[in-house]
Amino acid sequence: MRILILGGDGYLGWPTAMYFCVRGHDVHTVDNYLRRRAHREQETDSLTPILESLPARAEAWRAVTGYRIGVTEGDLCDWPTVEQVFREFEPDAVVHYGEMPSAPYSHITREHAVFTQYNNVVNTLNVLWAMRDFAPEAHLVKLGTMGEYGTPNIDIEEGFIDVRHNGREDRLPYPKLPGSWYHCSKVHDSTNIHLACRIWGLRSTDLNQGVVYGIETEETRYDPRLATRFDYDEVFGTALNRFCLQAVIGHPITVYGQGGQTRGYLNIVDTLQCVELAVMNPPDLGEYRVFNQFTEQFSINELADLVQRAGREYGLEVRIDHVDNPRVEAEDHYYNAKHSALLDLGLKPHYLSETLVESMFAKIEEHADRVITKAIMPKTRWRPEREPVPR
Amino acid sequence: MRILILGGDGYLGWPTAMYFCVRGHDVHTVDNYLRRRAHREQETDSLTPILESLPARAEAWRAVTGYRIGVTEGDLCDWPTVEQVFREFEPDAVVHYGEMPSAPYSHITREHAVFTQYNNVVNTLNVLWAMRDFAPEAHLVKLGTMGEYGTPNIDIEEGFIDVRHNGREDRLPYPKLPGSWYHCSKVHDSTNIHLACRIWGLRSTDLNQGVVYGIETEETRYDPRLATRFDYDEVFGTALNRFCLQAVIGHPITVYGQGGQTRGYLNIVDTLQCVELAVMNPPDLGEYRVFNQFTEQFSINELADLVQRAGREYGLEVRIDHVDNPRVEAEDHYYNAKHSALLDLGLKPHYLSETLVESMFAKIEEHADRVITKAIMPKTRWRPEREPVPR
Repeated sequence: MRILILGGDGYLGWPTAMYFCVRGHDVHTVDNYLRRRAHREQETDSLTPILESLPARAEAWRAVTGYRIGVTEGDLCDWPTVEQVFREFEPDAVVHYGEMPSAPYSHITREHAVFTQYNNVVNTLNVLWAMRDFAPEAHLVKLGTMGEYGTPNIDIEEGFIDVRHNGREDRLPYPKLPGSWYHCSKVHDSTNIHLACRIWGLRSTDLNQGVVYGIETEETRYDPRLATRFDYDEVFGTALNRFCLQAVIGHPITVYGQGGQTRGYLNIVDTLQCVELAVMNPPDLGEYRVFNQFTEQFSINELADLVQRAGREYGLEVRIDHVDNPRVEAEDHYYNAKHSALLDLGLKPHYLSETLVESMFAKIEEHADRVITKAIMPKTRWRPEREPVPR
Repeated sequence: MRILILGGDGYLGWPTAMYFCVRGHDVHTVDNYLRRRAHREQETDSLTPILESLPARAEAWRAVTGYRIGVTEGDLCDWPTVEQVFREFEPDAVVHYGEMPSAPYSHITREHAVFTQYNNVVNTLNVLWAMRDFAPEAHLVKLGTMGEYGTPNIDIEEGFIDVRHNGREDRLPYPKLPGSWYHCSKVHDSTNIHLACRIWGLRSTDLNQGVVYGIETEETRYDPRLATRFDYDEVFGTALNRFCLQAVIGHPITVYGQGGQTRGYLNIVDTLQCVELAVMNPPDLGEYRVFNQFTEQFSINELADLVQRAGREYGLEVRIDHVDNPRVEAEDHYYNAKHSALLDLGLKPHYLSETLVESMFAKIEEHADRVITKAIMPKTRWRPEREPVPR
C-alpha cells in the first residue's frame, strides 16, 4: 500500500514510517519540524539524540536496511505543499500524526493556544480537501486522543453512544469534555472529519489514543541513528516516560495533585500495531469510525508506585512528590473506557510491567548526561497566576 | 450596564446596539465589515440600503435620538484590537455576533472553509483571553446556532443532556451533528467557551439561535438611515426572508429538495428580546449555559405554503419550485427541539403569521429595484460537482 505519514519526524511518526516500510509498504513522510522548533523555544530537547533532519533519518534508514522512505519537508497548513504531496504520492492510506500534540504547550500563552488550534484545525481541513480532490478513496487514519472524552461519570464508549431519551433512540457522537486547548483542537478535528465523511463520502478511522510510553521499537533497535525522540520535559513529556526519567536521575517523581487521575496507556510498539490494524482494515467509503487506542488504565499514583517498585529492583531510590497540580482536572473520578475494537481486529497487547520499566531505565541511563533538569518541574499552569484585574 | 456588541454592523448586531442603547445602557460596537466585503466578493448586497460605515450609522443614531453608540472598526482576530477594546470599555456583558455566519459561504472553496473556521475560532479565543485578563466577571452572550445539533432522532435539549448508561448517569454536553463547515465552527466555539468557563471561571450564555426572519425592529423604524441589512441571496439569505423576496419579485420560491427540512425560527424582534433576557439574567461565575433561541418550528414546505397563502391575500401569484438540494441534509426527519429556558425568563414570542409576512412584502417592495436576481438561485454545493479523480 501507499502510506502517507504526516508528522513523520515525531515520537510516533518516525517509528511508524519504519514499521510500514519494513513490511513492504511504500511510505512517504511529511514534517515541518514543529516539535523541534517548540523544543528550541522552550530550551529543551529529546533525551535520545536524533539525526538533524528527516532526510538524514531516511538516508540512515536506507544505509541500514536498503529501504527507501520518501520525505517532504513542509507545513500542512500550506495548501500548495499538501496539494503537491497528495497529487504526487497518491496515497491509499494517510496516517495523520502531524499536529501540535501537547496540552501544556497550548496553555503557555494566548499565542500558543491560538497557534495550537489554528495549526491542528487548518492542517486537518487541508488534508480533508486534498483527499476530496485527489484521493477520495484513501483512508484517513487520524490520531485523536482519549483526552477528547475528559472524565465523564459514565463508561466511555468508542466514539459513539446509543442514547435513549424520551422514548426515542439514536446512535450519536459521544459527548466530549476536553480539558485543554490542545484537547479541544482534537475535538474540533473529530467534528470536521466526521462531517467530511458524511458530505463527501470520505472514510476515516479516528484513533483516540491513550498515553504512549516506551523508547524503543523493533526498528529503532536496528541502529542508534534510527532512534526516535524521547521527551521528558513538562511540556512534551508524558506521565510514565517522565517518571522513568525522574527515577533514573534521582529527581522525585512529580505526581500532579492527589494522583487519582486515571487514563488509558499503551506501549509505543502497540501504537504501531494499532495503526497497522486500522490501515489494513479500512472502513467503507463514507464511514467515520472511532477506536479507543490503549491497552490498560492506570491512575498516576499506580504508575508512580510501579516506577518506585521497579526502581527498588533496579537499585534506584525513588521518592514520590505530590506537587501542586498545574492543570485543572478531577483528581479522583470514575473512569471506565471501552477499548475492544482494536482487540477484535487482532491487537496483541504488550502490557506494562516492572521488566518493561527497568528496560526503560537502562535506555534512559545511556543518555542521562543529556538531561536538562530545569525542564522537569511543571511551570505551565491552566489558570492565570496573577489575580484578576480589580473592578 | 456596559454592553459590548461584537459584529455591531450586522443584521442582528446593529439592531441589538440600538435596542440596548435606547434602554439606557452604555453600548460599544466592534466590526471589521467582513459581511460587507463578502457581499462585494459575491457581487451581492443588502436589499435595504444601509449607511456606508458603522461610524456613519452611529452618527445617524445620534442625530435621530441624541444617544451615543461607541464604535471600533477592527478585526477580532487581531489581538491588539481586542485587548484595547476590553481594556478601555470594561464591559459588563459581551454580546458576540462577530462571526462569519453563513453555511453556504463556508462551502464555496477550501479557502472559504478555512477562513470561516479560522475567523470564528480565533476571534472567539481572543475574546475569551480578553475576558480572562481584563473582564473576568463579565458575561459572554455568544450567538451559536440550532444547526450545531443537526437533526438527531431524539428530542434536542438545551445544550446538555442527562445520559443514563450501563447503570450510571451524568449530565453531558448534548451530542452535536453540525452539517456544514460553518456549523462546525460554531461547535468548536461552544467547546472552547465551555472549557474557558471550567478552567478560568468565566461565565457565558451560548444562544443556539434558530433561523431569524424580519426586516424591522422598533428602532429601525425611527428613521430610514437606521435600517438594518436584509440578505436574500443564496449565500447570506435565510429561508423565510428569501422566500418573501422571491414572492415579491415573482421568482418561484426555491425549496431545496423535498422541503421536509424542519428548523426553529424566530422574529428579529424576539432575537433582541432573548439577548436582553440573557444579558439581564447572567449565570454564576464559572457557569456555561445554553439556551435554544427560537419560538416555533417549521418545515421548509410549511414556510413556502405560508408565503404562498400570504401572497394570495396580498395579490401576488406565488409559485413553489423544488430545486436540487445543494446541501447534504436529511429532507424528512424527526425534529423536536426544546426551547423553554428563555420562555421561563419571560420571553413573549411574536409568532409568525400571514400578517407579518405581508408586512415584509410591503417593506421588500419599497426596495424591489435593488434586487440582484442572479444571486437568488443556489450555486454553492456541499458536494464537489466534478467527479472524483479516477484511480
